[in-house]
Amino acid sequence: MKSHVKRRTDPERAQSRRNQVLQAAAVCFARSGFHGASMSEISKEAGMSAGHIYNYFDSKEAIIMAFVDLEAEHVTAQLRELQSKEDPLQSMIDEAPRHIDENLDPEYFQLPLEMFAEAARNPKIAAAMRATDVAAMAEFRPIIKRERERRGLSVDDALLDGRIDTMVSLFHGLPIRALHRPQLDRNSLVEGYRVAMKALLLT
Amino acid sequence: MKSHVKRRTDPERAQSRRNQVLQAAAVCFARSGFHGASMSEISKEAGMSAGHIYNYFDSKEAIIMAFVDLEAEHVTAQLRELQSKEDPLQSMIDEAPRHIDENLDPEYFQLPLEMFAEAARNPKIAAAMRATDVAAMAEFRPIIKRERERRGLSVDDALLDGRIDTMVSLFHGLPIRALHRPQLDRNSLVEGYRVAMKALLLT
Repeated sequence: MKSHVKRRTDPERAQSRRNQVLQAAAVCFARSGFHGASMSEISKEAGMSAGHIYNYFDSKEAIIMAFVDLEAEHVTAQLRELQSKEDPLQSMIDEAPRHIDENLDPEYFQLPLEMFAEAARNPKIAAAMRATDVAAMAEFRPIIKRERERRGLSVDDALLDGRIDTMVSLFHGLPIRALHRPQLDRNSLVEGYRVAMKALLLT
Repeated sequence: MKSHVKRRTDPERAQSRRNQVLQAAAVCFARSGFHGASMSEISKEAGMSAGHIYNYFDSKEAIIMAFVDLEAEHVTAQLRELQSKEDPLQSMIDEAPRHIDENLDPEYFQLPLEMFAEAARNPKIAAAMRATDVAAMAEFRPIIKRERERRGLSVDDALLDGRIDTMVSLFHGLPIRALHRPQLDRNSLVEGYRVAMKALLLT
């Protein structure tokens, strides 16, 4: 009993166990789909008992919610980094290739595609994604606004949101494009993105 | 027996039965996911016996393949329409709002999201989507090339493909954007798309 209590109260160990479950779940969701993957498949992949997994996650839904939280942390970190740049708009354009490469990697995009399909039918997951987006937009908008102002470009609120929504769509669509056309030329794609992003951010 | 034989050989009736199954499957895949939906759930939704469904589709995978074929027909029809326009590039920009509205409709995008998630793990479905894309690109490229040539714009093959891949990503990403931000302002989004498409097609 003592060791069990210790395990439950050691935050570092708990965090590492949670991550172990999340990694296994990502593999299982990608392989079998969210509905096809069972908690027992996930526990087998994680090398843990199903009972043990329930110490960390009540359900598969709770696992997806944890992925939404991880994505929110990732976006927050990216926005903080952007904020620290001398010229955020130019650096978004310059760093597009890195984001493009991330989104072209099937290892990376299989799980998001599964999550989006699930969010389209599960209001709780959709609500979590939306809350994350509201928070991200609240940080992103002022950066774009300030930088456009500095350049003497229009900072109309509706125009800005339309430009941001368009740019976000561009990145969200990339994995789906890569799925349809795996032979696409990455460098030509980068050039296309650059043209679109310049028009959206710098005009 | 006579009526059964008649049913199997009446192409119009068979087509209408196939459509009935596809409609029911779209509802079930959206509700339960591709892996969560069973043939018996689909047959119940279609108001047909499971045995009867197997007359038209061997498996759930065969149903998804039929959806890929329907999408291919839709794309072909759109490309034919585009080809018939006096100014195809300008009409792509002018008609963007219609495509945007289609992609913002959750009724419309739930099934594609499910199909993309499944294609990311199922090589047979991915191969069918890729073949469709190869055929579509073979029709789309020359239209863009001819029209850019007419305007004195660059028709470098790599540049063209990069522009097309970027534009297609833009539309594929839209449902995912709408999922994250259902309150987005459609008119501002249309303006953002116009800016990006003009830069991609007309510069």
